[in-house]
Amino acid sequence: MRVYGDIRSGNCYKIKLLCSLLDIEHEWIHVDILAGDTSKTGFLQKNPNGKVPLLELDDGRCLSESNAILNFLAAGSELLPSDGFRLAKVQQWQFFEQYSHEPYIAVARFIAKYLGFPEERKVEYEAKQPGGHRALAVMEKQLSTSPYLAGDSLSTADISLYGYTHVAHEGGFELDEYPSILGWINRIQKTPNYVGMS
Amino acid sequence: MRVYGDIRSGNCYKIKLLCSLLDIEHEWIHVDILAGDTSKTGFLQKNPNGKVPLLELDDGRCLSESNAILNFLAAGSELLPSDGFRLAKVQQWQFFEQYSHEPYIAVARFIAKYLGFPEERKVEYEAKQPGGHRALAVMEKQLSTSPYLAGDSLSTADISLYGYTHVAHEGGFELDEYPSILGWINRIQKTPNYVGMS
Ligand SMILES: N[C@@H](CCC(=O)N[C@@H](CS)C(=O)NCC(=O)O)C(=O)O
Ligand SMILES: N[C@@H](CCC(=O)N[C@@H](CS)C(=O)NCC(=O)O)C(=O)O
Repeated sequence: MRVYGDIRSGNCYKIKLLCSLLDIEHEWIHVDILAGDTSKTGFLQKNPNGKVPLLELDDGRCLSESNAILNFLAAGSELLPSDGFRLAKVQQWQFFEQYSHEPYIAVARFIAKYLGFPEERKVEYEAKQPGGHRALAVMEKQLSTSPYLAGDSLSTADISLYGYTHVAHEGGFELDEYPSILGWINRIQKTPNYVGMS
Repeated sequence: MRVYGDIRSGNCYKIKLLCSLLDIEHEWIHVDILAGDTSKTGFLQKNPNGKVPLLELDDGRCLSESNAILNFLAAGSELLPSDGFRLAKVQQWQFFEQYSHEPYIAVARFIAKYLGFPEERKVEYEAKQPGGHRALAVMEKQLSTSPYLAGDSLSTADISLYGYTHVAHEGGFELDEYPSILGWINRIQKTPNYVGMS
């Protein structure tokens, strides 16, 4: 099993963290996003959408989209609920992440940390701030009533949201106003086999 | 079971279409997005993220995110594969929809059709065009090799992508360049119990 990824990306780190928690053996193949590796022909044959992370099975079949990869790898483990409604809640949080969280928090972080805050993207960076805080407030509300996003135990939903939330400050989002998020980050970091981003 | 939605929204229409295909009884409660109904206190108590569609079960539990709702309602039916890899592919396409398709095609359509193309959003509208065509090209590639997105039969992935693709022209995306997408739209519209958007 191969994982194509760039570890500076939170979407790729999600897979690294899950594989560590579940002790899943895999080969990590570095793809340099900033060098344009994701738009090279060989990579596009594996993922026509030109994005990492990408999972390649030993038989050559490929799967893209970080959250789909997480749920595929976690099937049958304690990280993916078997109850129908809880499983739906896991997916609810994952779609929330892709639509209402990542496009603000990950993009602001990318502009500040990887592009080095260029003048021509400062307006965009500022525009990302309210949306990011809105997403964090939605998480804070849930985490003030349950220790994990989809209930009492860790699930792939937490891994999906943890990816960019724990480095949100690198995109300008200070987490001091979100005590329940800070407690949740702390709990995740104490999970056996936890690994950090780099 | 209640569905809160605004039928002009493709995200809400996905739920209407699935309920019709699977003959699922439900009460539809109209929420007027343009009138700001999604930011009223009563609605925010049900969905702190302030978005439709929203599913409310008879016991009061709520589920948001259109694609999570689809998969929850389709569990156990022929629209959701039981094979692990095919199920992962369904999710891959649904995350693709939320991240690489909807933010371009649905937003361009919203600006053109519902806001009436205001001068101050023309730049944004134009900026949405390349991303929308990129997403359509990824779909076209898949649909030139399989009749449905995740293989040989209709799944919730197709419903997720159909929502905004079949009205993409309302956002300026002419589908003539995408013959496989046109064939797929045709196949979906011939499914027993199919209903249109309005
Ligand atoms: N929805 C995708 C997003 C993946 C994504 O945006 N990957 C970025 C790195 S964080 C990438 O590959 N960018 C290269 C490109 O778009 O050309 C997922 O969750 O996997
Ligand atoms: N990711 C969400 C997106 C839902 C969404 O954006 N809904 C829009 C209508 S299409 C909405 O409720 N907008 C009101 C708002 O954001 O205030 C889903 O798939 O359900």
